[in-house]
Amino acid sequence: MTTPKNDRFLKALRREPTDCTPIWLMRQAGRYLPEYRAVRKEAGSFLAMAKNPDIACEVTLQPLRRFPLDAAILFSDILTVPDAMGLGLYFVDGEGPKFERPVRTAEDVAKLYVPDMESELGYVMDAVRTIKRELNNEVPLIGFSGSPWTLACYMVEGGGSKDFSKVKSMALNEPAMMHQLLDTVTESVIQYLKAQHAAGAQALQVFDTWGGALSPRMYREFSLQYMAKIAAALEDTGVPVILFGKGNGLHLEALAETKATAIGVDWTVELGDAARRIGGKVGIQGNLDPVTLYATPEAIAKEAAFALDSYRDGNNGSRDGHVFNLGHGMSPDMNPDHVAALVEAVHSYSAR
Amino acid sequence: MTTPKNDRFLKALRREPTDCTPIWLMRQAGRYLPEYRAVRKEAGSFLAMAKNPDIACEVTLQPLRRFPLDAAILFSDILTVPDAMGLGLYFVDGEGPKFERPVRTAEDVAKLYVPDMESELGYVMDAVRTIKRELNNEVPLIGFSGSPWTLACYMVEGGGSKDFSKVKSMALNEPAMMHQLLDTVTESVIQYLKAQHAAGAQALQVFDTWGGALSPRMYREFSLQYMAKIAAALEDTGVPVILFGKGNGLHLEALAETKATAIGVDWTVELGDAARRIGGKVGIQGNLDPVTLYATPEAIAKEAAFALDSYRDGNNGSRDGHVFNLGHGMSPDMNPDHVAALVEAVHSYSAR
Repeated sequence: MTTPKNDRFLKALRREPTDCTPIWLMRQAGRYLPEYRAVRKEAGSFLAMAKNPDIACEVTLQPLRRFPLDAAILFSDILTVPDAMGLGLYFVDGEGPKFERPVRTAEDVAKLYVPDMESELGYVMDAVRTIKRELNNEVPLIGFSGSPWTLACYMVEGGGSKDFSKVKSMALNEPAMMHQLLDTVTESVIQYLKAQHAAGAQALQVFDTWGGALSPRMYREFSLQYMAKIAAALEDTGVPVILFGKGNGLHLEALAETKATAIGVDWTVELGDAARRIGGKVGIQGNLDPVTLYATPEAIAKEAAFALDSYRDGNNGSRDGHVFNLGHGMSPDMNPDHVAALVEAVHSYSAR
Repeated sequence: MTTPKNDRFLKALRREPTDCTPIWLMRQAGRYLPEYRAVRKEAGSFLAMAKNPDIACEVTLQPLRRFPLDAAILFSDILTVPDAMGLGLYFVDGEGPKFERPVRTAEDVAKLYVPDMESELGYVMDAVRTIKRELNNEVPLIGFSGSPWTLACYMVEGGGSKDFSKVKSMALNEPAMMHQLLDTVTESVIQYLKAQHAAGAQALQVFDTWGGALSPRMYREFSLQYMAKIAAALEDTGVPVILFGKGNGLHLEALAETKATAIGVDWTVELGDAARRIGGKVGIQGNLDPVTLYATPEAIAKEAAFALDSYRDGNNGSRDGHVFNLGHGMSPDMNPDHVAALVEAVHSYSAR
């Protein structure tokens, strides 16, 4: 694969030196952009956008036209894989994603299968190919998937949950059944990410949104070991893999022992501590509290500088190996001017 | 004050030896009990119950009649103090607590004051006195308050929040104003807890429900330092103080440096790690994932044993200094029989 013209992001993931710290933002293609809202209005729904490769390409590129971001991320959803398994993904405004046919019984689990990537998830691969062509090799393209545990949460609960009582009860009462579910999902995610890489994605992120809701013992058994399998299965391809986890701050040492290239962390861990604990084994991505984008541009710049310096102080005085990001995704009512201020602050403050 | 007949809980908080590990459960007086629902139906609302000392006493005692719990906890709400400041606390079914007059401006902050404990919060002190009398010294009575930061979250947001954007923006944009608010709230909480102790409470818990939503820097500045002030202000009274925090797992060393008697942790930290990191400086309370109560009694007993042994392994082979609890409050649809199974499992498994 050709190296992108701006390869700061890929270099930082591998802990190689860069001229400044690269930045991209989770949910950088989203409703906070008026041009996104215009496309969405015409397309009718989020899923209609994600399932149309030309529209997915357009909204993927929108934030890059406004801000000098160092990576593009495929516009898609973390739940495409269980949707392709026949669970029936749909969205209710203000309530998040839901499944028509949640997985509750041994029979439901037995019926799960690994979808065919080009026929059943072809719209995702088409989107990757279209974006890759239109990106014209300016910046790298990130592909992604939900983590097996996070997908299992939605599959069993049938949507978002406050306490994950159904999926945790299944894990506690029927651990073998839960592992059967996670095995099928993990194999699907591996094939899904390999297919995205084959279609052109130059880095891959696994979103473990709900691993942090587990006790450490259950985290290791039901989330971490499956992410480790994914990272190991992708090692031969050479594509960098980022394991992002909300609330993973107590598991950084264990995550750094996987074959992942970098670990994504949320804002509840101090970057310097994360760097000290990870000890240069992998890159680190993060971790401004997204809510900081509601503050003034001055406060945003101050918080960005704090995060950059904290990382450097914990990383033996070097800014290498850090990809700047938020600790979680952006929200629809954020101000694009504040995003511009953040990107400018990160690039200028970290310039060597 | 007289020592209660069952003083396991007070001894464990101070790391003194006990015959078995004591247990109480956050929200042990609650809707999962049919006898609670009956009282609530008659009283009309949660607030009507909390503001009537006889009803508050009745529901405080209900779980103790069913289960051999090692402590009673005052039936009240964490938001009584801002309510007494004139913010107008009310509850909307399924949405949690709200304030009629949230705190948003410098003028709003300037108007806040320390309420008079016996006239403006007399119903709480009357409840403590009534419960203390009816408890007949069988088990200790725990009083409590929300932490200053957690109270500030509700006061500024006007209710619960997904991202705490209003209160965090105030902290980022107007830190001096936020500290002014927190100073008044902290002084109120100190007087509130002292009054509860004077009325008969034998231990005090500070609930920092939302400190874990902050970055570590903001946690230290806006949550931890105020909890430390509270613990220090109560030190002279000799009453044990528990600082409970959801998502406080990355801050245990700092919490153990306060004048608190014990630290309450949620289920996302492994008890053995917590014990090792705290190094015997304070007691530890926790930390079963409340969702475990939806699992089978066998699974509940297994998880309880895991937590008890994890603590012992991290505490130099001793079970001393551990108060068993959930990592967060109980839910209305939990089965009382499962609570009985948990209490029995903890007492029998930990018996010396």
